[in-house]
Amino acid sequence: MSGWLKIVGLGPGDESLVTPEANTALAAATDVVGYIPYVARVAPRDGLTLHASDNRVELDRARHALDLAVQGHRVVVVSSGDPGVFAMASAVFEAVEEGPDAWRTLDIDVLPGITAMLAAAARAGAPLGHDFCAINLSDNLKPWALIEKRLRLAAEADFAMAFYNPRSKSRPEGFEKALETLRTQCGADRLILFARAVSRPDESLRITTLGEATADMADMSTVVIVGSSRTRIIDRPVNPIVYTPRFTPE
Amino acid sequence: MSGWLKIVGLGPGDESLVTPEANTALAAATDVVGYIPYVARVAPRDGLTLHASDNRVELDRARHALDLAVQGHRVVVVSSGDPGVFAMASAVFEAVEEGPDAWRTLDIDVLPGITAMLAAAARAGAPLGHDFCAINLSDNLKPWALIEKRLRLAAEADFAMAFYNPRSKSRPEGFEKALETLRTQCGADRLILFARAVSRPDESLRITTLGEATADMADMSTVVIVGSSRTRIIDRPVNPIVYTPRFTPE
Repeated sequence: MSGWLKIVGLGPGDESLVTPEANTALAAATDVVGYIPYVARVAPRDGLTLHASDNRVELDRARHALDLAVQGHRVVVVSSGDPGVFAMASAVFEAVEEGPDAWRTLDIDVLPGITAMLAAAARAGAPLGHDFCAINLSDNLKPWALIEKRLRLAAEADFAMAFYNPRSKSRPEGFEKALETLRTQCGADRLILFARAVSRPDESLRITTLGEATADMADMSTVVIVGSSRTRIIDRPVNPIVYTPRFTPE
Repeated sequence: MSGWLKIVGLGPGDESLVTPEANTALAAATDVVGYIPYVARVAPRDGLTLHASDNRVELDRARHALDLAVQGHRVVVVSSGDPGVFAMASAVFEAVEEGPDAWRTLDIDVLPGITAMLAAAARAGAPLGHDFCAINLSDNLKPWALIEKRLRLAAEADFAMAFYNPRSKSRPEGFEKALETLRTQCGADRLILFARAVSRPDESLRITTLGEATADMADMSTVVIVGSSRTRIIDRPVNPIVYTPRFTPE
């Protein structure tokens, strides 16, 4: 039997945001590998083995998945959102690059998904409707100085910005520092959105300004979006709309 | 009857990348409004009116959709990819902001989709696997100087970069200038990907370097991705993998 590996994005949470392509891959799999809460989203069935592992063991998980595929299993590695955006795809390729030759000949596909920032942006309106950047605020794998530099340059470029992994228990001070840098660069009136658990039962969306924002408005389930200087709010009798227009004057 | 407006992303082309949520909206619609090739992706049926319009009339199209919804129609505005990324969502909100009060009370939703850069990145591996930015290279609605500035700052920030609308007949020189700026900032060895019509029958993917890249490698159906300094290629007996690792050393 010829094994394969598919690295699949399950979207932000709701089943209605999982692509048919992702479901087809899951239906053909013999093994599903991933972080515990993402594997829990896959329905058990005969012939399917679920391998759930804890957070922060991405490389071990990737190697396990590659081993199974080389042995002839049909393996799906699940990520939430899109697997290519701060998720499992890069971890798998790091493992392939450093691993045995057999891993390089494997049939490996990445199946895209709805990433958290786009689900969050859709809920708010279109805050990423013009040029934007996406930054992982975790400094587990890069120096904080690089995060600071990217924040300053992104502000100077007047990008809208989406932030993944804004805050964790192990580094509570990082997001506070990021907010301070953004306030200095962008001013207190700049719009900021905290979108938590979008499409899940405990979804919440808070729209405020950098001047009013505090670090405790985010946790590890939150995507944070900071507008560009052009991002605006349409107040209306129903929910407000936050969007970035397409047009930038000379 | 109470009308509504949903701004829906159909993904990059293949049906297997359309979310169930998008199909549910289309099934409930009385009217579909959009650019000709995107409306052509919606199956005709009794009770559904298709309103296809030409390119570059986004605001007129948005106003037409809003008018229909106010009259009680259930209207889907279709975009390819994700409607919030260089697509119809911002155009609709521009129209709402400048339009009559009745438009502000409407039930308006944005339904996310698989945007072109994420479909392209998945096909290549994971070139957007770490911090990245997305820039629309069209200068129809913003000054070229702003595009140049963003390119320089994005290179300085060492973002991977995705470029939408790299090239059109009306401005053939823009993308050539962008490549020249990127070559100066990032060096000739930096990886660049040209992903055309991903998930469609005429899909193509070309992996090269800035030194070898020429403007005619892109057209308006191409998404261009330029790696960060960390983006690398894994050569293998089968298709090569391009990815950006999660780890950045001090």
